[in-house]
Amino acid sequence: MNHNMNIHTFIGCESEYKDSRIIIFGAPFDSTTSYRPGTRFASAAMRNESFGIETYSPRQDKDLLDTKIYDGGDLELCFGSPELALYDIECMERDALDDGKLPIMIGGEHLVTLGAVRAAVKKYPDLHIVHFDAHADLRDDYLGQKLSHACVMRRCHELVGDGKIFQFGIRSGDREEFRWGRKHVETSKFGFEGIKTLKEKIGDKPVYFTLDLDVLDPSCFCGTGTPEAGGVSYNQLIMAIEEVAKLNVVALDVNELSPMLDQSGASTALACKLLREIMLYFYKE
Amino acid sequence: MNHNMNIHTFIGCESEYKDSRIIIFGAPFDSTTSYRPGTRFASAAMRNESFGIETYSPRQDKDLLDTKIYDGGDLELCFGSPELALYDIECMERDALDDGKLPIMIGGEHLVTLGAVRAAVKKYPDLHIVHFDAHADLRDDYLGQKLSHACVMRRCHELVGDGKIFQFGIRSGDREEFRWGRKHVETSKFGFEGIKTLKEKIGDKPVYFTLDLDVLDPSCFCGTGTPEAGGVSYNQLIMAIEEVAKLNVVALDVNELSPMLDQSGASTALACKLLREIMLYFYKE
Amino acid sequence: MNHNMNIHTFIGCESEYKDSRIIIFGAPFDSTTSYRPGTRFASAAMRNESFGIETYSPRQDKDLLDTKIYDGGDLELCFGSPELALYDIECMERDALDDGKLPIMIGGEHLVTLGAVRAAVKKYPDLHIVHFDAHADLRDDYLGQKLSHACVMRRCHELVGDGKIFQFGIRSGDREEFRWGRKHVETSKFGFEGIKTLKEKIGDKPVYFTLDLDVLDPSCFCGTGTPEAGGVSYNQLIMAIEEVAKLNVVALDVNELSPMLDQSGASTALACKLLREIMLYFYKE
Amino acid sequence: MNHNMNIHTFIGCESEYKDSRIIIFGAPFDSTTSYRPGTRFASAAMRNESFGIETYSPRQDKDLLDTKIYDGGDLELCFGSPELALYDIECMERDALDDGKLPIMIGGEHLVTLGAVRAAVKKYPDLHIVHFDAHADLRDDYLGQKLSHACVMRRCHELVGDGKIFQFGIRSGDREEFRWGRKHVETSKFGFEGIKTLKEKIGDKPVYFTLDLDVLDPSCFCGTGTPEAGGVSYNQLIMAIEEVAKLNVVALDVNELSPMLDQSGASTALACKLLREIMLYFYKE
Amino acid sequence: MNHNMNIHTFIGCESEYKDSRIIIFGAPFDSTTSYRPGTRFASAAMRNESFGIETYSPRQDKDLLDTKIYDGGDLELCFGSPELALYDIECMERDALDDGKLPIMIGGEHLVTLGAVRAAVKKYPDLHIVHFDAHADLRDDYLGQKLSHACVMRRCHELVGDGKIFQFGIRSGDREEFRWGRKHVETSKFGFEGIKTLKEKIGDKPVYFTLDLDVLDPSCFCGTGTPEAGGVSYNQLIMAIEEVAKLNVVALDVNELSPMLDQSGASTALACKLLREIMLYFYKE
Amino acid sequence: MNHNMNIHTFIGCESEYKDSRIIIFGAPFDSTTSYRPGTRFASAAMRNESFGIETYSPRQDKDLLDTKIYDGGDLELCFGSPELALYDIECMERDALDDGKLPIMIGGEHLVTLGAVRAAVKKYPDLHIVHFDAHADLRDDYLGQKLSHACVMRRCHELVGDGKIFQFGIRSGDREEFRWGRKHVETSKFGFEGIKTLKEKIGDKPVYFTLDLDVLDPSCFCGTGTPEAGGVSYNQLIMAIEEVAKLNVVALDVNELSPMLDQSGASTALACKLLREIMLYFYKE
Repeated sequence: MNHNMNIHTFIGCESEYKDSRIIIFGAPFDSTTSYRPGTRFASAAMRNESFGIETYSPRQDKDLLDTKIYDGGDLELCFGSPELALYDIECMERDALDDGKLPIMIGGEHLVTLGAVRAAVKKYPDLHIVHFDAHADLRDDYLGQKLSHACVMRRCHELVGDGKIFQFGIRSGDREEFRWGRKHVETSKFGFEGIKTLKEKIGDKPVYFTLDLDVLDPSCFCGTGTPEAGGVSYNQLIMAIEEVAKLNVVALDVNELSPMLDQSGASTALACKLLREIMLYFYKE
Repeated sequence: MNHNMNIHTFIGCESEYKDSRIIIFGAPFDSTTSYRPGTRFASAAMRNESFGIETYSPRQDKDLLDTKIYDGGDLELCFGSPELALYDIECMERDALDDGKLPIMIGGEHLVTLGAVRAAVKKYPDLHIVHFDAHADLRDDYLGQKLSHACVMRRCHELVGDGKIFQFGIRSGDREEFRWGRKHVETSKFGFEGIKTLKEKIGDKPVYFTLDLDVLDPSCFCGTGTPEAGGVSYNQLIMAIEEVAKLNVVALDVNELSPMLDQSGASTALACKLLREIMLYFYKE
Repeated sequence: MNHNMNIHTFIGCESEYKDSRIIIFGAPFDSTTSYRPGTRFASAAMRNESFGIETYSPRQDKDLLDTKIYDGGDLELCFGSPELALYDIECMERDALDDGKLPIMIGGEHLVTLGAVRAAVKKYPDLHIVHFDAHADLRDDYLGQKLSHACVMRRCHELVGDGKIFQFGIRSGDREEFRWGRKHVETSKFGFEGIKTLKEKIGDKPVYFTLDLDVLDPSCFCGTGTPEAGGVSYNQLIMAIEEVAKLNVVALDVNELSPMLDQSGASTALACKLLREIMLYFYKE
Repeated sequence: MNHNMNIHTFIGCESEYKDSRIIIFGAPFDSTTSYRPGTRFASAAMRNESFGIETYSPRQDKDLLDTKIYDGGDLELCFGSPELALYDIECMERDALDDGKLPIMIGGEHLVTLGAVRAAVKKYPDLHIVHFDAHADLRDDYLGQKLSHACVMRRCHELVGDGKIFQFGIRSGDREEFRWGRKHVETSKFGFEGIKTLKEKIGDKPVYFTLDLDVLDPSCFCGTGTPEAGGVSYNQLIMAIEEVAKLNVVALDVNELSPMLDQSGASTALACKLLREIMLYFYKE
Repeated sequence: MNHNMNIHTFIGCESEYKDSRIIIFGAPFDSTTSYRPGTRFASAAMRNESFGIETYSPRQDKDLLDTKIYDGGDLELCFGSPELALYDIECMERDALDDGKLPIMIGGEHLVTLGAVRAAVKKYPDLHIVHFDAHADLRDDYLGQKLSHACVMRRCHELVGDGKIFQFGIRSGDREEFRWGRKHVETSKFGFEGIKTLKEKIGDKPVYFTLDLDVLDPSCFCGTGTPEAGGVSYNQLIMAIEEVAKLNVVALDVNELSPMLDQSGASTALACKLLREIMLYFYKE
Repeated sequence: MNHNMNIHTFIGCESEYKDSRIIIFGAPFDSTTSYRPGTRFASAAMRNESFGIETYSPRQDKDLLDTKIYDGGDLELCFGSPELALYDIECMERDALDDGKLPIMIGGEHLVTLGAVRAAVKKYPDLHIVHFDAHADLRDDYLGQKLSHACVMRRCHELVGDGKIFQFGIRSGDREEFRWGRKHVETSKFGFEGIKTLKEKIGDKPVYFTLDLDVLDPSCFCGTGTPEAGGVSYNQLIMAIEEVAKLNVVALDVNELSPMLDQSGASTALACKLLREIMLYFYKE
């Protein structure tokens, strides 16, 4: 008798690490969330609920069953210590990059991106960042704290420099963030205007793609800590991701699902489906 | 003193059976639901909440008060035994068809459609089926079970044959379902493309119309067990139903509302309003 | 040591009464709500949750920090006595108008509008009303009650007369309301058709603007007692408000948020953001 | 074909009015509720959920199937007008008393008791009242309103006079209520001390029994608008009701269940079970 | 690099099958649940939430870290087919018993017990059953269905015969169940009266212990489909389990947790803690 | 016109700082919470919901209206930085102690206690601590973090030394915590055994009293992150607090309410009532 039913992965991601082209892992951390915490539960919820979706994508006519993807489970991150958490994320990410994998991190609050970008920029000094979000995340500090989810793109900017960050969907931030942003990053407000010129602008340079799910309109994604009305639809997001898939993406993340705020489960289901589509878009043999 | 306040019907559906052109009834069954059960509560919730809507439709400028519709209450179905439940549904449907009524069944999970189609196809051997859904429901079996909500259109196909089933809004299924479907049914993926040619294709042949409410985008209908992002809007659905109303519809159903997942009540309210619109669209003196 | 942290206002509305151009106040009353009560909690919830949004509007490139707005807190209204509640609202509104302020009332159920309109029409006998809503609210009485949220625009009509009320977004009501409405008010069904001709029609005459948030589609605003499918999007609403801001608006209100129905908080967050946009649109030095 | 499945009564209460010894009816009114409304949904929720309990009581070894009880449905009460609502309740109660029935009213907020007591005291001028509650409900007015749920026993006292009201379980009220109460009513604080002497004190005089369910500790009954810690257990309550059943109870009510606050359904289920036990305790051939 | 973080077991149950004395497994089945389904999610929820409790029991001064327990994950059971589901359960249970393990099954609805008892009684023909529950579960059929959760002890009785089933905590059932029960099983109503004489009555005969968690009062365990007021407390239950642990228990189960009804998580947390205590009570080297 | 309705304090705590004997303030911090965060919302929720309780205590026959208590609002604490947060708490606490006030802090997670104890022990080097809790909180570190809610009493021990900490109600912890605890602190497991000897043991020495609300059984207090079955009742807790009120308590806190987990509001209401009782017990002219 040989049971193995307590292996718990995202649906269709049951390959061995060594055979896999993509690895996914969870970064359940939300200690700096200033408003409503709970994104720490996102990766576990997505694994649980992924069994409510199919492995096959009618849109792409591709199937996770034809891929080799490893689900590395969740990192055990220290609540209350952003620096330690970021360090653990960076190590995980670095290992995956060094092994030639495409790492996909599931947040967690948006700060987790910083750990991954730290690893990516060390390997790819010319790293560009494509950033989908409702919020600019460009503050220099938040209540004196430099390592806050509200500052994450500012911290990333310190690593990659001017003109390397491309933001889309941004519709919230304080005045100072927008002022600063105008000089240092490229921001497309409200939607995806200009997304089709990305390939032309970035070419084959290495790209980190960070997707804050609150870029979606709260009508289709209410399960997030700071819902911002006036966002994009699921179909608009999918089409934008198709554009990003044309770039040389070396690592990516999906963050800010907060399952406790998702009573109906529709946000978690959307996140699962989106992750499937992303894995299929970015999967290369 | 003569109180009759414990009669409990959908708003505006208080006529006697014998006088009515339309009858509605509930089929509260969800035993084969593979993921999140709860559609068994749909018909009772819709009756309760129907008193939050009006009997008058501004869109159609018609009023339930001018119709004769009988609400037959809920069937008492045996949980755990799909075959028995389907049999009871078939009897109810057969009686209504034999009495010259237009039966409208409120599910329950989508499997209940099979019971109604069995009755309809016996009376109308040339039955066609118009199917709005997010899911193809074309599996041959589900974990070995042939009578599962995931297989319901496959079972219906066995009754009506090739080329008689027209699917719209489909955006989920496994690869095999889509492959099989290409040969045996007509499927419009994602939306209602082609809906305007239905009349031309089907003419005056008898039609069973089955509406799985998860064809709607979860943004406007989150109260369902398997929400699928990327669906249609309420207004798109209404316009598609207008097209179906041009056909010779002999029976129909509305299914897969799951009230426990609808904390705000917006999905139940939508289902009530939609049922009102449907009754008014399909009502003929 | 001088703490003042228990002052509780909407974000960015911390000016003194005497210095302010706009005053906001809550009217937490829902006693006549016929279906699901709970709007009494709206103003308190909006104050609490306003700290989850920014003071800066990327759309308008304006900031509440540059305004002088006074938050007068909530009126203490008597539940169970609509007449007393309306009287208290009228007094508050009258004082604000007499002091040259622009009062913005946060409901509560829609009946509260009547108290404010009573004050406004006394000061501005030629008052016009712009009314965004899913429901016509034109009944003469509701179960014998004249002071009901379902009758509020009918009561307002008695104060301002024919041709002064302009309704938008209406998609629910009984047949009689629509019949009556055709003779006495201007109604744009379903959306904002004709909104751009308002300025031409009303000119510089004084306008009361009443915004029932259920004009929004339940997909983006499910936290309300009678959600009506088929409504407008957030962006459509913002653009319509831009048109209203061109009028000579002397007072306004925002009503019918019901926080208990808003498990995810997305409706409350939208209401907060909308109030910020409204304050910035209607703020004049 | 003869369906009657849309008759909707509390389980086991399906007799005709004329044959019944007990009649139950709902009084869905909560307009004066000062804090969290929602008790208007209690009677409908109890009917729906009553099908989750049995008709048989293991405690009493009695069965509703052996009784004749009529469920008169819900009164249609005018929200926003306590006086009208109380009048309708009084009429219903008067008819039942005149027809020799034992009326059991299901609230609604506690104010509904006043309507029933008005009818009862007209028929039985020597009426006594037994009152189980967490709150004294003895205010003279509440924000100027005399007809408020917080004043209901004070209003009842005006009808029955000193020494006729016996309160149990009281653990909340303002200082003035307790002062006033000491002179005019008998109050047993916190629990049921003295309940066994009731028979001796009241003898066979006519008794109205009003049961505010918040007398229960919130641990077993959280589904109520103003939960008060430190209450009695279900078993303590049942034993106290057994004592009341020894009195000459001519009418009674059960009130203050608020289903929206009862996510798990445990409070509604308790209320259903309690109503079954009460009907069986007070049923006399 | 060697990650194994996607192994998903109950806390402290990470041993290999072959080394373990106890095995636990989930039986996520609820298709015959007549009222509110959802127990299918219990075992997954308990694994997830088990990381919120400790492995150490202060009451017993024992630690799961000192045990060898295997978590076999969840069986994949066919919804809609009780007979197939019971067969799969019986096989799992039989294997565990044949391998000399103590199997602990986590339901699921109570019907799952029948599968386990079928296996146990084949190995131990003299099997006795100790049954903690709020409900007698002694119906002969439920709406014509013999394999229903409401009939499970009746079906078990057919396997073990008269005088072998000992019920405790029973406080609900129809009259016929109690009548039948008096002749064929031993029932202690409401609580645990007589529990201390069990050892004397049963001696060292093999015992199957089935624990329906709704034996607990809904105050401490509201997360179950049919909450019954008047139940036992957590401490009373623990002390009763201590008595059962003195018997020769060869297999056991814990069932009827319904996580969807447990908004606060307190019921799931209790179930986790109880399972820990049970594993420690019944663990023998 | 002079409105001040946007002052937001706990009910009955409206005095000026300088006149007050007691000050209350919120410490909304939960960044180190290892399991389910959300206690950051406790103090705001308690202020909001305090208007659902009375200022008068029937148990003590005392009224907050006769006291002078200042509500200092909430500290603005930096999420993600325990050290900064603790520093701000210490400053607030130190000022209050220096001004001769009795500070009552409302958490937040239990770690906030450390900030307050740091201030108290500086002023009262002989400080004793009375600690009510379900959890021992005696770990040396938690995932490497020393400043974690799971370590708070261990950190406090480092400040006050052996034999100064008296724990009650403890029923959870790892084995090592209990071993260590036996040597360094006095622990009463499960309940309040020995509470009556506290006065004798501690005499008039200065005492810090920290009350983790999860000492209560989850039946009466489910709104907390780590509910532990087997706790004390509300009445038992009140009686234990009466004993603590006989000591020379110089500062205290109440923590670990998590409003998001309290759907019914019963836990928040209990916390409000408890705070009222505590303020009245510890209030000295």
